[in-house]
Amino acid sequence: MADVWKECTDYCVEVVKHAGQVIREALQKDINVMEKSSPVDLVTETDQRVEQLIISSIKEKFPTHSFIGEESVAAGAPSVLTDNPTWIIDPIDGTTNFVHRFPFVSVSVGFAVKQEIEFGIVYSCAEDKMYTARRGGGAFCNGEPINVSQQEDISQSLVLTEMGFKKNPEHFKTMLRNINAILTIPVHGIRCPGSAAVNMCLVACGSADAYYHMGIHCWDMAGGAVIVTEAGGVVMDVSGGPFDLMSRRLIVASSRKIAERISKEIKEFEVGRDDAGGQ
Amino acid sequence: MADVWKECTDYCVEVVKHAGQVIREALQKDINVMEKSSPVDLVTETDQRVEQLIISSIKEKFPTHSFIGEESVAAGAPSVLTDNPTWIIDPIDGTTNFVHRFPFVSVSVGFAVKQEIEFGIVYSCAEDKMYTARRGGGAFCNGEPINVSQQEDISQSLVLTEMGFKKNPEHFKTMLRNINAILTIPVHGIRCPGSAAVNMCLVACGSADAYYHMGIHCWDMAGGAVIVTEAGGVVMDVSGGPFDLMSRRLIVASSRKIAERISKEIKEFEVGRDDAGGQ
Repeated sequence: MADVWKECTDYCVEVVKHAGQVIREALQKDINVMEKSSPVDLVTETDQRVEQLIISSIKEKFPTHSFIGEESVAAGAPSVLTDNPTWIIDPIDGTTNFVHRFPFVSVSVGFAVKQEIEFGIVYSCAEDKMYTARRGGGAFCNGEPINVSQQEDISQSLVLTEMGFKKNPEHFKTMLRNINAILTIPVHGIRCPGSAAVNMCLVACGSADAYYHMGIHCWDMAGGAVIVTEAGGVVMDVSGGPFDLMSRRLIVASSRKIAERISKEIKEFEVGRDDAGGQ
Repeated sequence: MADVWKECTDYCVEVVKHAGQVIREALQKDINVMEKSSPVDLVTETDQRVEQLIISSIKEKFPTHSFIGEESVAAGAPSVLTDNPTWIIDPIDGTTNFVHRFPFVSVSVGFAVKQEIEFGIVYSCAEDKMYTARRGGGAFCNGEPINVSQQEDISQSLVLTEMGFKKNPEHFKTMLRNINAILTIPVHGIRCPGSAAVNMCLVACGSADAYYHMGIHCWDMAGGAVIVTEAGGVVMDVSGGPFDLMSRRLIVASSRKIAERISKEIKEFEVGRDDAGGQ
């Protein structure tokens, strides 16, 4: 079954290892930062270089495949998922962390066929942790099997999310309202590590029990989603409905019970879709 | 000058290394969690065992010295800083992280003489990073010199704080209000790693530009404060006045300018003092 894509998976691990090495080296050097659209939305030369490295390596071996990459999309490429085998790439997930050398920075690659994710690879560069999962084949960190915590009691849970300034005052207010709602359940705590893909892997390996986010992109989620699922976790939409890779909305959790409780507690705000052409 | 305490510093590094090893081993095992006063305030057998290990090792070598330790204070020991050489110990800084195996967990030791901190040692266990600083001798991570980012522009900064449920609704409201105030400056982002001592070290090594906290304890700050200062950073009270180890209030930053700006943005709430006998 999923083994038909084994060659792609193995090749992807090698490409991501190489990309991660470039990032680890860049973290040692001074970084020339260019601004994209706001101070919160930073992009660096390394970001673009790493995406080019990943795409060109894969194109060489699989010339008929499609690509969705954060930097390519920022440069105007379409962000539409077709049935064709598609590599969905975030060259540096946690760009702000990267710029500051805050230790959660990752390379994330998800591979979808007929719009279903077949495998995901997330490499947490500073931690030197390679997370891998193939559909139906389990999830691993540095080759060792990983599992979610299986926690079902939200009052015993550690919850991850992201806290950023949002230009839309209503969105900003709702984001803070949601943090308030989760904290007053109460939970053990909220952590904001700053890399969506690492957040998903932290849930996958049981170091946190849930992660929710509105405004995330498909390239942040594609790799991590299958890792969480294969580690025994739950991936759903913030509404409580099925996960939609292009929806820019996400809850992952150690159990359906926790995911559904978070879905009930948080209020939604409009974030658009990745495949709607607007950002 | 500070070299008079070199023997204590070197011995402390060995003791902390040993304590860190116990924690690293415990992180591999199942953990029996006991509750202290609230779900957010967890304490584990390891916490108490590590503090006993540290105190007994140091007492053996320096029998006339005094101790302030998180677990001893929880068990009723006084928390008053005298002029006597005093070891201020947090056996596991980031207990909630420890329970969840979230990767920011540290051992923190500060050593004060005549109420002035002479050296600080913080070992970030999961990261395997040993931060050390002696007054006047610079700051180091795994033996390599470290420096703050020297950032002066708060709009370019990454800010750390902690977000926890607080029983007092006014305190809770003010905590969220402060996060709102910092985010809307705006800054690059806020991160909540969950270990005060690690937060201070992240500022010391330039991975973040500031950290503020009300409700922190002297054992959370004693080790990190000298590490930040020796790395070229600023340590002050949330009011903008001088740092007071027993005040339970803290701002550390890469520059005076950023520390003062944070002090202006945040609203204070009453947290009591560590040496007032109440918690």
